[in-house]
Amino acid sequence: MQTRAMVQTAPRKLELRSLPVPEIGDDDALLRVEACGICGSDCEQFAGVLPIPLPVIPGHEPLGWIERIGPSAARRWGVKEGDRVVVEPILSCGRCKTCTSGMRHLCFGGGRGFRCYSYIPLTTPPGLWGAYADVMYLAAETVVHKIDGAVPPELAVLYNPLGAGFRWAGEIGGVREGDSVVVLGPGQRGLACVLAAKRAGAAAIVVSGLARDREKLSLAREFGATRTVVVDEEDISSVVFDVTGGEGADVVLEVTSYALEPIAQTLTLARRGGTIVLAGVKGMKEVPGFVSDRAVLKELTIRGALGVTSSAFRAAIDLIESRDVDLSRMHTHSFPLSRADAAIRTLAGEFEDERAIHCCLLPALG
Amino acid sequence: MQTRAMVQTAPRKLELRSLPVPEIGDDDALLRVEACGICGSDCEQFAGVLPIPLPVIPGHEPLGWIERIGPSAARRWGVKEGDRVVVEPILSCGRCKTCTSGMRHLCFGGGRGFRCYSYIPLTTPPGLWGAYADVMYLAAETVVHKIDGAVPPELAVLYNPLGAGFRWAGEIGGVREGDSVVVLGPGQRGLACVLAAKRAGAAAIVVSGLARDREKLSLAREFGATRTVVVDEEDISSVVFDVTGGEGADVVLEVTSYALEPIAQTLTLARRGGTIVLAGVKGMKEVPGFVSDRAVLKELTIRGALGVTSSAFRAAIDLIESRDVDLSRMHTHSFPLSRADAAIRTLAGEFEDERAIHCCLLPALG
Amino acid sequence: MQTRAMVQTAPRKLELRSLPVPEIGDDDALLRVEACGICGSDCEQFAGVLPIPLPVIPGHEPLGWIERIGPSAARRWGVKEGDRVVVEPILSCGRCKTCTSGMRHLCFGGGRGFRCYSYIPLTTPPGLWGAYADVMYLAAETVVHKIDGAVPPELAVLYNPLGAGFRWAGEIGGVREGDSVVVLGPGQRGLACVLAAKRAGAAAIVVSGLARDREKLSLAREFGATRTVVVDEEDISSVVFDVTGGEGADVVLEVTSYALEPIAQTLTLARRGGTIVLAGVKGMKEVPGFVSDRAVLKELTIRGALGVTSSAFRAAIDLIESRDVDLSRMHTHSFPLSRADAAIRTLAGEFEDERAIHCCLLPALG
Amino acid sequence: MQTRAMVQTAPRKLELRSLPVPEIGDDDALLRVEACGICGSDCEQFAGVLPIPLPVIPGHEPLGWIERIGPSAARRWGVKEGDRVVVEPILSCGRCKTCTSGMRHLCFGGGRGFRCYSYIPLTTPPGLWGAYADVMYLAAETVVHKIDGAVPPELAVLYNPLGAGFRWAGEIGGVREGDSVVVLGPGQRGLACVLAAKRAGAAAIVVSGLARDREKLSLAREFGATRTVVVDEEDISSVVFDVTGGEGADVVLEVTSYALEPIAQTLTLARRGGTIVLAGVKGMKEVPGFVSDRAVLKELTIRGALGVTSSAFRAAIDLIESRDVDLSRMHTHSFPLSRADAAIRTLAGEFEDERAIHCCLLPALG
Repeated sequence: MQTRAMVQTAPRKLELRSLPVPEIGDDDALLRVEACGICGSDCEQFAGVLPIPLPVIPGHEPLGWIERIGPSAARRWGVKEGDRVVVEPILSCGRCKTCTSGMRHLCFGGGRGFRCYSYIPLTTPPGLWGAYADVMYLAAETVVHKIDGAVPPELAVLYNPLGAGFRWAGEIGGVREGDSVVVLGPGQRGLACVLAAKRAGAAAIVVSGLARDREKLSLAREFGATRTVVVDEEDISSVVFDVTGGEGADVVLEVTSYALEPIAQTLTLARRGGTIVLAGVKGMKEVPGFVSDRAVLKELTIRGALGVTSSAFRAAIDLIESRDVDLSRMHTHSFPLSRADAAIRTLAGEFEDERAIHCCLLPALG
Repeated sequence: MQTRAMVQTAPRKLELRSLPVPEIGDDDALLRVEACGICGSDCEQFAGVLPIPLPVIPGHEPLGWIERIGPSAARRWGVKEGDRVVVEPILSCGRCKTCTSGMRHLCFGGGRGFRCYSYIPLTTPPGLWGAYADVMYLAAETVVHKIDGAVPPELAVLYNPLGAGFRWAGEIGGVREGDSVVVLGPGQRGLACVLAAKRAGAAAIVVSGLARDREKLSLAREFGATRTVVVDEEDISSVVFDVTGGEGADVVLEVTSYALEPIAQTLTLARRGGTIVLAGVKGMKEVPGFVSDRAVLKELTIRGALGVTSSAFRAAIDLIESRDVDLSRMHTHSFPLSRADAAIRTLAGEFEDERAIHCCLLPALG
Repeated sequence: MQTRAMVQTAPRKLELRSLPVPEIGDDDALLRVEACGICGSDCEQFAGVLPIPLPVIPGHEPLGWIERIGPSAARRWGVKEGDRVVVEPILSCGRCKTCTSGMRHLCFGGGRGFRCYSYIPLTTPPGLWGAYADVMYLAAETVVHKIDGAVPPELAVLYNPLGAGFRWAGEIGGVREGDSVVVLGPGQRGLACVLAAKRAGAAAIVVSGLARDREKLSLAREFGATRTVVVDEEDISSVVFDVTGGEGADVVLEVTSYALEPIAQTLTLARRGGTIVLAGVKGMKEVPGFVSDRAVLKELTIRGALGVTSSAFRAAIDLIESRDVDLSRMHTHSFPLSRADAAIRTLAGEFEDERAIHCCLLPALG
Repeated sequence: MQTRAMVQTAPRKLELRSLPVPEIGDDDALLRVEACGICGSDCEQFAGVLPIPLPVIPGHEPLGWIERIGPSAARRWGVKEGDRVVVEPILSCGRCKTCTSGMRHLCFGGGRGFRCYSYIPLTTPPGLWGAYADVMYLAAETVVHKIDGAVPPELAVLYNPLGAGFRWAGEIGGVREGDSVVVLGPGQRGLACVLAAKRAGAAAIVVSGLARDREKLSLAREFGATRTVVVDEEDISSVVFDVTGGEGADVVLEVTSYALEPIAQTLTLARRGGTIVLAGVKGMKEVPGFVSDRAVLKELTIRGALGVTSSAFRAAIDLIESRDVDLSRMHTHSFPLSRADAAIRTLAGEFEDERAIHCCLLPALG
């Protein structure tokens, strides 16, 4: 059997190939890919700024059906052929100190370095380590979650950004009923944070963005934001102090990409004893204006947020399956597999007229 | 290659056999057993009261050296041939909701039921699932921890009961500096709770036992108990209220075996807002005198304690390696492999003159 | 100035009196009572089964306006005359170990015993310690929370049972997105647990009641219960195992009054690693069938729940003010002050035809 | 009755005065000061860099005996005349959201701003708000803790820095058995962190200082540091990676004063998933080199640490009373009340030959 796959061979270069589908054994499986979500790190991988060996099949946000599965994997994962599942990106070893301390999503275990779907090259057998493909290989360390077959694929595949929202706003930020929350950045993950914060009962949610983000800010309001701020035009601090009676916010989430100023700003926006979640990456740049005394004097908690836990993925799936929220405006663009580069470039904002929030590949489209 | 192993073929019947040592693959290993600790569940297994298929090789508290290991396992587990390690008993799947919620030690994953060394029969290949042997098989799901080669084996093998102490008193009980702690039952796990409570800074530790437990109670005092109570002679409640100024204890640990009365008593001994840890099993018997309103009116937290987490095993190893505490009086009896039945019966108290606290097998003895 | 107050002089005997309103000082206040909620403990106090000295003014769920306040209290409490507030029942000392350990709602501090509005007799100056009155005294230790003036009083006064819901299901039970929850007992506090569990994102909520509770169970479904069980007709265990795929529920809340059987049942209904919240009081009776091994083998957490924290009251007020949920069916009966006995007896179910969920006094009615 | 007090009237100016001792009421008390500890903020207050109104009696680390107490305070605080106590510095309102959220030590409640002994001016009746005196006033909001009368005063008064150690390393840092810990800065609070980390079972404790800190580093080793680093001579990163097998430390505590570089360094020294505690103040200066991506990619938790909780003070008192550790080398200088300026200047390092770690006033000396 052969499968189509989009293989990255150089920065900004993806090519469609036909590759052999491997035999599986007792403890692994194959996924028939139904959809693959695209996120900011797909854009970085495409641009070639991540240190990933080539050639490689990208794609680490898969939704699909179990095509074939070994008996041991079926027992351990609790699924059978034909089940519709989403797949966690990280291949954790399960045995190192990080894993056995409950931080499986940060595993660098067993001297293997960080193992994640889409970052393992084609030359590592069996090669099909990414979801830009019709069929993807699932190794023994995979964690999958079943998802309701009736949810349209472009909404089901939102499990990944929504999982980040539940992880960042809920598990790391600890938002709870009545809290005031600030979300800096209205991208797909910022919007997911709004949804998770609202779902946790936040009383006030302030979301900031740029003038060009007006549609995203409108969607933020639909998802529960009580106030949006265009930072080109309005001072976010004034708004936050106004909303919180001068106290500052209980939880501040920084989810902008590459903007350096918001980091120092979070220290001002948070209330005494408040929590700041840093999730936006900055290309390893030094951030200006960081006055650590603000963190000391207010006893702030500042938490870096990178990965998503299984519990957060389960929460996302629960929200999707509940149909309590209309998620359709969050998904903006679907592409056939062969147009993966267009999907990435659309999300990256390379096309003037396309205001993307969430893009995905649907192999069924071609 | 062949290995000796003690095989249980019927209740109270162990026989020495020579069995073939299997080939290993990429992701498993063999352990050269140096010592195997014996605990209460070994006694239950020997007596035949646990529903374990026979024939089986018992022994789930192994200490030993990595004899052979596959390259993948070596990477994932972070060990190589010749390393001295202890082995966790539970073979968790790592993929089910229990595992991915951080309760790996409670895994019943993948429809396989509970998987634990010593409880998998000889008929499940490769058969060598227990540590009453010279060589033991280590499957891919195994978690091992390195331990200092200079610690005598009969002390190193205390990692298992000490791990329970750190789990029960520390992680579950939450004992911290200045706390008042009650330990009901001075067996090896009760003593381990005393050590862990002392290590966490408990200011007052009251330990109860029977008249026949005087030596154990003496050792409890050596390990940090500030008061011991012979319950045949003295009222534990009076002592606890006296010690705590009438408030009750911050943490109460129930680690007696088969005594039913102490369960209801814990509700009285704990202070308002206090924590009770239930670790002593009672043969599925109903306990008398349980007045749930005491738990409500004092807002008690009652937590069942069964397994031991990786972090607690690491804490135990740290205590052993630190040599801060003289553990030698805790270990009382060592036996050759061929006398496993004597080891079990000694711990079970079947021999009038032997006051055992901790017993182990040392295959090197014969 | 005089105030009307309903004074309890004997079991089941309340009489309307006119009492002098005291002067206040720097650090106390007077409340103009707008409404007072009635709960199960009002029924117990009325019946005379609680050890409360008489005569006394009952009522510990007040809603009202600050009538007068000393300057120090105004600063500390953050309110001024005319503000609409709810009042926490417990008068905690703020200085004892219980208070300074974050369990202020359990304070027995300073040798004064437990101090709570409605339980301090008329003979302790200034006497007006209960909310069955037009005016109530607020001592220096009082905690108040502002509440939106536009919410009708019979809904605003639901802050007390709703606060219990957020405390019991949320803070103690730890319900979160995707959890399966069982609520045993559909009274006002059971319904509040349903609301709080739904609000926290519970995916499945099973609520049990008796045949006579059909209206309450219907309301439970309106509030988010996914399944209700009439225990006279159906086996709750079968339902819970069916709903949870045989695993048992993540969180089980016991909020029945005086039924003894459900306590042991909770041990069966909870999943491995699950949480049980005991909030229903049983008249200090021993409960039958308590097999502690179930708690051990499943590593259950069982937590007694008595009081309500400030954070839970704030969550309740947030829910009320959000108007996200129509709470009007939860409130069933309003009474004038002079008919406090009818309010209590209605809630207690003494009148055949009245199916009460929540009752309150509205002094404005007479 | 009159009392001596050292009154600060201008920056670097303290004068001895005789002041009237006030009458007390029902809910306040007087303390006969036995000792007052001096810390870095005493130095700042003396220098005039803190915005504190003058004239004022400094001193917020008192040890003493209850001289007189009102009946209500006696009940609430659980003490009587003649009891030896230590006094918490913060006068929290107990009613605001910060207080009722369990962060009483951060209270700015009731519009009164931050209230702390030694920062309330002489002009606010009754004026005796500081412990540089024979007698000090204790207001109703005071929290006191009893301490064993047999401990020498210069050791008993260590409760304050030791409390910070338990708060910062234990409660905020979460150090536990087996952890690797880095303490940047070997002052009195750095040493207290070493003690608390050791007491919590840390396996490796690396402490850094300057060449002039050699005596402090020697004491750090006595208190449990497994490795000390003179940062003028050795690279702390190399040492920490060496000690931790290349992983980085579980917990990094920054307790230097006014050094800006260590803040960014903490991000490098902490392991994936590790915790950083920021306790050293930097005069509100921006810190250089802060690369926030390190916090994101390693999912670090960074927590500001300012105050000390009641539970941490209790832990400190427990350690002092246990006599498990010889604390005498930690205390270096005692002064009579009249030489408060010398005490402060000694701690501040103004005298070439005096290597101070901890200084205190003992009014009995004159």
